[in-house]
Amino acid sequence: MMNPQSCTPSEPYRGLIHRYGFRLDIEGKESPITLHEGNTPLIETPRLADRIVPGGRLFVKYEGLNPTGSFKDRGMTTAMTQAVHEGAKAVICASTGNTAASAAAYAARAGITCAVLIPNGNVALGKLAGALAYGAKVIAIDGSFDDGLRIVRELEGVSGLAVVNSVNPARLQGQKTAAWEVCDQLGDFPDWLCLPVGNAGNISAYWMGFQECQAGKCGGLDCQACGRVRAPERGLPRLLGAQAAGAAPLVLGHPVAKPETKATAIRIGNPARGDQALRAIAESNGHLCAVTDEEIFQAYGKVAKAEGVFCEPSSAAGIAGLRQAVKEGKIDPKGKTFVCVLTGHGMKDPDSVLSSGAQIHKAAADMASVLKEIER
Amino acid sequence: MMNPQSCTPSEPYRGLIHRYGFRLDIEGKESPITLHEGNTPLIETPRLADRIVPGGRLFVKYEGLNPTGSFKDRGMTTAMTQAVHEGAKAVICASTGNTAASAAAYAARAGITCAVLIPNGNVALGKLAGALAYGAKVIAIDGSFDDGLRIVRELEGVSGLAVVNSVNPARLQGQKTAAWEVCDQLGDFPDWLCLPVGNAGNISAYWMGFQECQAGKCGGLDCQACGRVRAPERGLPRLLGAQAAGAAPLVLGHPVAKPETKATAIRIGNPARGDQALRAIAESNGHLCAVTDEEIFQAYGKVAKAEGVFCEPSSAAGIAGLRQAVKEGKIDPKGKTFVCVLTGHGMKDPDSVLSSGAQIHKAAADMASVLKEIER
Repeated sequence: MMNPQSCTPSEPYRGLIHRYGFRLDIEGKESPITLHEGNTPLIETPRLADRIVPGGRLFVKYEGLNPTGSFKDRGMTTAMTQAVHEGAKAVICASTGNTAASAAAYAARAGITCAVLIPNGNVALGKLAGALAYGAKVIAIDGSFDDGLRIVRELEGVSGLAVVNSVNPARLQGQKTAAWEVCDQLGDFPDWLCLPVGNAGNISAYWMGFQECQAGKCGGLDCQACGRVRAPERGLPRLLGAQAAGAAPLVLGHPVAKPETKATAIRIGNPARGDQALRAIAESNGHLCAVTDEEIFQAYGKVAKAEGVFCEPSSAAGIAGLRQAVKEGKIDPKGKTFVCVLTGHGMKDPDSVLSSGAQIHKAAADMASVLKEIER
Repeated sequence: MMNPQSCTPSEPYRGLIHRYGFRLDIEGKESPITLHEGNTPLIETPRLADRIVPGGRLFVKYEGLNPTGSFKDRGMTTAMTQAVHEGAKAVICASTGNTAASAAAYAARAGITCAVLIPNGNVALGKLAGALAYGAKVIAIDGSFDDGLRIVRELEGVSGLAVVNSVNPARLQGQKTAAWEVCDQLGDFPDWLCLPVGNAGNISAYWMGFQECQAGKCGGLDCQACGRVRAPERGLPRLLGAQAAGAAPLVLGHPVAKPETKATAIRIGNPARGDQALRAIAESNGHLCAVTDEEIFQAYGKVAKAEGVFCEPSSAAGIAGLRQAVKEGKIDPKGKTFVCVLTGHGMKDPDSVLSSGAQIHKAAADMASVLKEIER
């Protein structure tokens, strides 16, 4: 078990297991596999708030600042730590890209082998580059993410091989810490927590985290891992889950055989934790919606240009969903506090910027030519 | 001035100016322009240590986890805060890519215009994508970084336009905080601090930070912004600066008219702070060296594959330089503590991975085909 001193705030941050290990239900915590994931910024975005939640406060939880550029690292530190503890010599996962980079990095850190299955031709460039840089074996299958996940589940139980998709319960143990951090940083529950829903592991993990926080299951008052909510009597946050319109199995109520969206990270037709996500949304008196690619990309451009926060397209689905719900009168924003989770960094997907029509100007290398170009 | 309570460690982190503002020599601190930069991980890398500093300890300072993916954000929060305080309506900079993304993000955050000059054809894709995403006017000039910097300096003094290159002294005020963080995280000075040298602002800023730390100029014992070094009597760290062999003006002793290296972030032939960097290296009894692109790319691959930390190629120059110095007997690593600064995230430059020969395998969407590919 962790030393209780591990969470004194004056000690340097050394990752989720060091910080919250005593409340995470995994094995092997005495030898964590960590890249100091977590501890990501919660940034208030007043210009965006004026536009989409007038009279309310809006924050983004910038999960793109995890070591491999997405929230997946939270679950990967716990899944990899437990896998190594159990003697795994290799890990495998299906991925739209973010899980691949994360699994590859933590396997490298652990000194074990990693294989990742990606859908052929539908993964952002920067994500593949990550998995390859970390030395993973990247296998493009002639099928979708859902096909990859099916194959990976068939491989469960092969000796020495651990599956690190979010069907692995150790993943959610790490991911739930994002909810605790949000509470730490706000000093309170938000009114609404909004996020994209792909495989539905993340929304399930947030709900688990908030519930445990309310129940005081997350530590002692002396260690900042509890006592984080100043007014727990106001009740748990409501969850807003947003799916891409072309990949919205939970909204439709049935799997989607051929999911389609340019937001590749949520291009999933048969979510592994769909039932759990629906339960979380229902229990929280939340809201589930589908947003078009146009709405997603508009939110994606706006958060970068209005606030200086660059996320990947799918990350903006939570903002797009919130905007839609307010416009449709389903949420009255006045006096409310909203947190939108930005799940991955925009750097992962340079093509989405370069293909959106942004222009590079040209000039000769002298002051007059440059000034002319600036004023043009 | 900042509230002294702003640095109590139990308060959520809200960026450099909030944390260290009382010790930063800039104006406008009461309205900081921030994306919660800084607070980046210091990660111990024992496998890499075994290989390059046997008998010593090696840490990497992972500056790629700043908001726009590089250390530039530290200087940009201070430069932009001061520029806005002084009434700037627009900012301009020359850049090999990292400064461009950072200036663009902080200008967006401040709600002002940003123009960036980049050398035509020699900037990593992911970096351009960033600057464009944040809405900056990106101008590719028919010349080098050095040409861009010359033009920008000619524009100094234009009303309402602030230059945010590292010739701006407010930049170094933010950048020096990286030295303070290293001390906070280690609880001590390292023996050696190793980093790439391009325009030479960063090495100058680290030296300023370490000196201020030793002089107790960084706050009071009660606020963690001082008292960070347990044994200051052991003396200041020594600085190791590494330039790319094809862009090594400080090593050669004269500007390089046509700098050449695949490590684009340090492809600079006439560093703005060259003299200051040489002084810092001399005062610290340090070491300056040139490393080949081959050495840089080897270190770049190794830190990702052996430790799960993905940096951009130029970031690995410090590691490459350290390795070279130990191999040549110029540094005895036994019992010593080394910190290598990884200045930017590898996600910024996916092309460097994809062009390095890393392979994607293909398989049909069934378990047998996938297993065959894994075992191949």
